[in-house]
Amino acid sequence: MSLLVVGSVAFDEVETPFGKCDKMLGGSASHFSISASFFGDVRIVAVVGGDFGEEDLRIFDHHGIDTSDLERIPGGETFRWGGRYDYDLNVAHTLYTHLNVFADFQPKLSAASRDARLVFLGNIQPDLQRGVREQVPQAELVALDTMNLWIDIARESLLKTIRVVDLVIINDAEARQLTGIPNLIKAARTILSWGPKALIVKRGEYGAALFTAQNYFAIPAYPLESVFDPTGAGDTFAGGFMGYLSSQEKLDEAAMRRAMIFGSVMASFNVEEFGTSRTQRLTPDEINDRFRAFKRMTTFEEIPFQRAVQSTR
Amino acid sequence: MSLLVVGSVAFDEVETPFGKCDKMLGGSASHFSISASFFGDVRIVAVVGGDFGEEDLRIFDHHGIDTSDLERIPGGETFRWGGRYDYDLNVAHTLYTHLNVFADFQPKLSAASRDARLVFLGNIQPDLQRGVREQVPQAELVALDTMNLWIDIARESLLKTIRVVDLVIINDAEARQLTGIPNLIKAARTILSWGPKALIVKRGEYGAALFTAQNYFAIPAYPLESVFDPTGAGDTFAGGFMGYLSSQEKLDEAAMRRAMIFGSVMASFNVEEFGTSRTQRLTPDEINDRFRAFKRMTTFEEIPFQRAVQSTR
Repeated sequence: MSLLVVGSVAFDEVETPFGKCDKMLGGSASHFSISASFFGDVRIVAVVGGDFGEEDLRIFDHHGIDTSDLERIPGGETFRWGGRYDYDLNVAHTLYTHLNVFADFQPKLSAASRDARLVFLGNIQPDLQRGVREQVPQAELVALDTMNLWIDIARESLLKTIRVVDLVIINDAEARQLTGIPNLIKAARTILSWGPKALIVKRGEYGAALFTAQNYFAIPAYPLESVFDPTGAGDTFAGGFMGYLSSQEKLDEAAMRRAMIFGSVMASFNVEEFGTSRTQRLTPDEINDRFRAFKRMTTFEEIPFQRAVQSTR
Repeated sequence: MSLLVVGSVAFDEVETPFGKCDKMLGGSASHFSISASFFGDVRIVAVVGGDFGEEDLRIFDHHGIDTSDLERIPGGETFRWGGRYDYDLNVAHTLYTHLNVFADFQPKLSAASRDARLVFLGNIQPDLQRGVREQVPQAELVALDTMNLWIDIARESLLKTIRVVDLVIINDAEARQLTGIPNLIKAARTILSWGPKALIVKRGEYGAALFTAQNYFAIPAYPLESVFDPTGAGDTFAGGFMGYLSSQEKLDEAAMRRAMIFGSVMASFNVEEFGTSRTQRLTPDEINDRFRAFKRMTTFEEIPFQRAVQSTR
């Protein structure tokens, strides 16, 4: 009954207009798994180097994240990413990307991992994603994230992978780039026509939307007066979304809608501090409070209009 | 018990990637009043030239819009605007602006107009807006729209006018420009601190948000697979919003929230065809159907999460 994530574990160096952090736990699998861990059991498939210490591992342990399939290469170095944000926090400027041990990452799934009910294929090379997907044929829901790089250099492989997953979770620029269609609604319909049963489009400060063949569901972002560090918001969203779903018996439209809210709640906490610092400290009450806030800020009464009585003219 | 709008009546020439229209009814007061007319009585204060014919006037008459205060200057020409949209339909490229009779527009309110319960100050010079506002001291709700031009060249007058209205309806770029604050939530709080009880921020394809001292309410835009001509969408939104409010006895938060939906519904129809062609043909059933669609696409069950039972590790 568990949730599996395949992705990167990294050390991030991030500079924003509000501060600087030299080395902190980052990577898609880290953000995803810490977020998901609040909702259910999660297993991580990733690779780290000899520089990944006990104190780093303890963060996963502390959240009950299963790291049996976290491969460690003692002679190698962990993936490192450096980025900078200006006042427009929607745009990350990459300063460097040292793939290190991640360059030769070949996801290896143990028997327990192959038993996962839900699988999240984090943003890695699409051939690798497809390789993992083939190892979990019985999974109830397999989701995929990707990025502009793979759309540019591995488009055909990415399209092949999209055809064999149930859910695609990307941002609006990626949806447009992937399809070449500027209208997001049309772009979404096109992606769904390739095979996935559902598509989630993340829109940053504007919220997120869920597209299925029959339905459209859209939510705003939680209103934050300051965003400190947006790194990992997308993976934290996916972690909250998939984590919540893993706690549910039925993965129907109603559960997916609530999962969208929990994903947004987790992302809204994530951006309040550097890296995973804020999410690491979260409590179930804080999460549920913000879930209820989403209800308050999106609710209206369904009363059709009747024209006011016309005055005599 | 009526609704008053002060603004422009124009002839628009618009070119989009999907077609071209040489001369059609446009201007803030036209879009606003046609939209509002579905919900209640509306009176228009504006100016036109001798070229504004009977067939143009008939459009207003047909919608029961009171044009007693529509001034006609036989020797002058009606305001004309020409614009072009590329595939990014969010950006209008102005080809020309011939203010004509609108250059010397001095809004004149009859006794009946000064009796209006709700007043919308369309996008005109802020001194003129304030002059109108002073003539309707008893109005229950006075709302204001503006644009980047007035923020640039008449900022002090605009701030004075904002201080004496109840509601500001602008887009997100204008909210940021007006306050110099990039974070929209902070910018909104700042605008509210100047006096208005409420602020609506229009976000185009991303929907709209309502800010009050106590509450935040955000809605997505209606998902359209094609946008034909976005001209007038903002005024059509305001018309639906204010028109719906004018049909309600109590102008409370719940009514404002429903009004946000009706505003968005009207704007979503407006962009489907050139100018006001689509809104002119609307029926109450079509409006209520799309209102119900908004409910379907924003509803989720308020069920707090409980962590799934942990497996034994």
